[in-house]
Amino acid sequence: MIRLDASAPDFATAFAALVDARREADEDVARDVAAIVARVRDEGDAAVRDLTQRFDRHSLDWRIDRADCLAAWEGLPSELRDALELAAERIAAYHLKQKPEDRDEIDSAGIRLGARWRPVDAAGVYVPGGRAAYPSSVLMNALPAKAAGVGRLVMVTPAPDGQINPLVLAAAHLAGVDEIWRIGGAQAIAALAYGTETIAPVDVITGPGNAWVAEAKRQLYGVVGIDMVAGPSEIVVVADAKNDPEWIAADLLSQAEHDPTSQSILFTDDAAFGDRVAEAVDRQIAVLATGATARTSWDANGAIIVVPDLVDALPLVDRLAPEHLELACDDAEALFDAVRHAGSVFIGRHTPEAIGDYVAGPNHVLPTGRRARFASGLSVLDFMKRTSFLALDEAGLAAIGPAAVALAGAEGLPAHARSVSIRLNQ
Amino acid sequence: MIRLDASAPDFATAFAALVDARREADEDVARDVAAIVARVRDEGDAAVRDLTQRFDRHSLDWRIDRADCLAAWEGLPSELRDALELAAERIAAYHLKQKPEDRDEIDSAGIRLGARWRPVDAAGVYVPGGRAAYPSSVLMNALPAKAAGVGRLVMVTPAPDGQINPLVLAAAHLAGVDEIWRIGGAQAIAALAYGTETIAPVDVITGPGNAWVAEAKRQLYGVVGIDMVAGPSEIVVVADAKNDPEWIAADLLSQAEHDPTSQSILFTDDAAFGDRVAEAVDRQIAVLATGATARTSWDANGAIIVVPDLVDALPLVDRLAPEHLELACDDAEALFDAVRHAGSVFIGRHTPEAIGDYVAGPNHVLPTGRRARFASGLSVLDFMKRTSFLALDEAGLAAIGPAAVALAGAEGLPAHARSVSIRLNQ
Repeated sequence: MIRLDASAPDFATAFAALVDARREADEDVARDVAAIVARVRDEGDAAVRDLTQRFDRHSLDWRIDRADCLAAWEGLPSELRDALELAAERIAAYHLKQKPEDRDEIDSAGIRLGARWRPVDAAGVYVPGGRAAYPSSVLMNALPAKAAGVGRLVMVTPAPDGQINPLVLAAAHLAGVDEIWRIGGAQAIAALAYGTETIAPVDVITGPGNAWVAEAKRQLYGVVGIDMVAGPSEIVVVADAKNDPEWIAADLLSQAEHDPTSQSILFTDDAAFGDRVAEAVDRQIAVLATGATARTSWDANGAIIVVPDLVDALPLVDRLAPEHLELACDDAEALFDAVRHAGSVFIGRHTPEAIGDYVAGPNHVLPTGRRARFASGLSVLDFMKRTSFLALDEAGLAAIGPAAVALAGAEGLPAHARSVSIRLNQ
Repeated sequence: MIRLDASAPDFATAFAALVDARREADEDVARDVAAIVARVRDEGDAAVRDLTQRFDRHSLDWRIDRADCLAAWEGLPSELRDALELAAERIAAYHLKQKPEDRDEIDSAGIRLGARWRPVDAAGVYVPGGRAAYPSSVLMNALPAKAAGVGRLVMVTPAPDGQINPLVLAAAHLAGVDEIWRIGGAQAIAALAYGTETIAPVDVITGPGNAWVAEAKRQLYGVVGIDMVAGPSEIVVVADAKNDPEWIAADLLSQAEHDPTSQSILFTDDAAFGDRVAEAVDRQIAVLATGATARTSWDANGAIIVVPDLVDALPLVDRLAPEHLELACDDAEALFDAVRHAGSVFIGRHTPEAIGDYVAGPNHVLPTGRRARFASGLSVLDFMKRTSFLALDEAGLAAIGPAAVALAGAEGLPAHARSVSIRLNQ
């Protein structure tokens, strides 16, 4: 953890280093992934079978029956079923309201024009397997696709040594996933993108994964749609001294426990409060089951930054463009109004970021690594596409056609010009 | 040009081959582009200077003054100025209506949640240089960024041998571009993405380019936002025998003249009409200034497909998911209702595709190569991003917090659980 003071003479340099620090794994996986993708494209099932044997050490049938998902659901403690149902209900409600409206207008020149949204035919959701099983990710990826109206929703999830976490299957049941395949890694992404003898191709692939999965999605962007390039999780907390330091420490640790590359940053206008939070972080880490990961993350990437006034934090926050931003202070609303770049904002002292990870409704798939400058969280729009349309009659074409003929001529495209002028000269 | 009959026994195989045919340049530019991108990232201006000298053969100052753009504008014939102004007015009007609405709601649990859209700070538009100068592309890329409210709009365009087409500068003047740089190729994309000593970085890069430009955008996707992976242009025309074959031939040629890799496909329910269109294509190519390109495209990639009824064309059109779809028939409206996948649809006999390239209003930057299955044309949304937000009070957290604690516990993330439970136990 580094401590910075915005009033110190070397602050600009130190903060720039924090902004530019690369936390993303620099593994050179591109070549391996390209080879896997090409093999799956060319060899289909045989390649997926071989790679699954090699990486996941099993040769089980890939297909997971929906009956297995139902059984997993019914096997959950009722407390978890209730929690998942509350989450699903709220996530579905939030995302249904994202559905865009079509346009169909006639303008002053009598020209009909508009745009129409339709869901993609098929979407694939990648769900990581192994120790960490995130049913919340199943809901956050599958439910927006359902809300969009996607007809065929496919899930792939690896089963290392043949094992699958029942929580993931239970969430798939709840979300209404149509097909589930027990495959993972770059080979699963390639199978979804190109299709194989067994698995029909999809149009969009979303969901988190390791470096191989992320690189496969990147390489196949254009063959299919993808959600985004995801990096390590991060949180920025802007907090005044009226907060309980234990609360703020807990929030910082809720990101730090994700991964050694996660990042937690506190902005405060009170250096002594910052010290109390740092002490609380240390106390909490000591008793946390995920303390080793959180320790590494906090030590390597954590920061406490003291600013003269909390409003002074805002331009710094915008430069970080964090995935998650908590505003735990009296004037949270005013600060929120001024923030330009953040994936999701959590306003007020009773809105810990983790509430948004699970049950609040908005999506927890959010842009990381400063990408909130230009990218948005996962939404219904990622599973839909827009078709624009035009309808002109003779009068409409007479009104605007000559301008098109002039421009096509100037651009040296005579067939463009002719396709308009031939209709004007009748 | 191939002729297919949907009633023929081998049609399924032949059509599948048409759908799967790769028309995109298979040049192996990835390695060259990666080297250029890395050099610009590491060496900044010096690399751009060197690469501009090498590829564009000039060492002029990169900066183009806005006064030069004004002069170019004033030097245009008034007919072209009027045409560009009409186009700009209609494009701006169409795209302003794309601006999404913010959401700010309080739900039944008393929880405030919503989403807010903001423009990116800076956008870069790539405009190809050389012989083909497309002022319409300047408008189609710059005006949506302006409509989004982008504060800093940057244009880059190469100047082979120091030459720049005044039409492009005039369009930049009209569109209100803030900065123009006389650089191009992968080096210009990298300069925009990373910034150099001279050029500040941008957040989003859009605009067409050659294979190097496209590959640079693909490689830098994630560092910046990009519009899409673009391929050769294509048109599908669905036409009955009541059309003038010359009109339909002109429409097919308006795509064929773009590039040897462009594709034009006619679906008709009348084989004799198809023959008349084919004859008209040959007649028109013979007198077309762009006839050589159109000939190559039509011979290599053109198709006339006879279907028993025009509605039988629709599932085939959806498989092609064409960039442009013209419906020139009596029941165009009914066909339009049933189409699922197309970038833009042109309804009725008086709506040639070229009208949409220039002046109608909707964007002419559209998904190619079957990407309309999942992608949309360029829009205001490409220059904006959405921030979701949440605000809970004690009662709201009490209502949904326990479910979050349960799920975080099940996912093995105790710090997530604690950041919620610590606020519940007060």
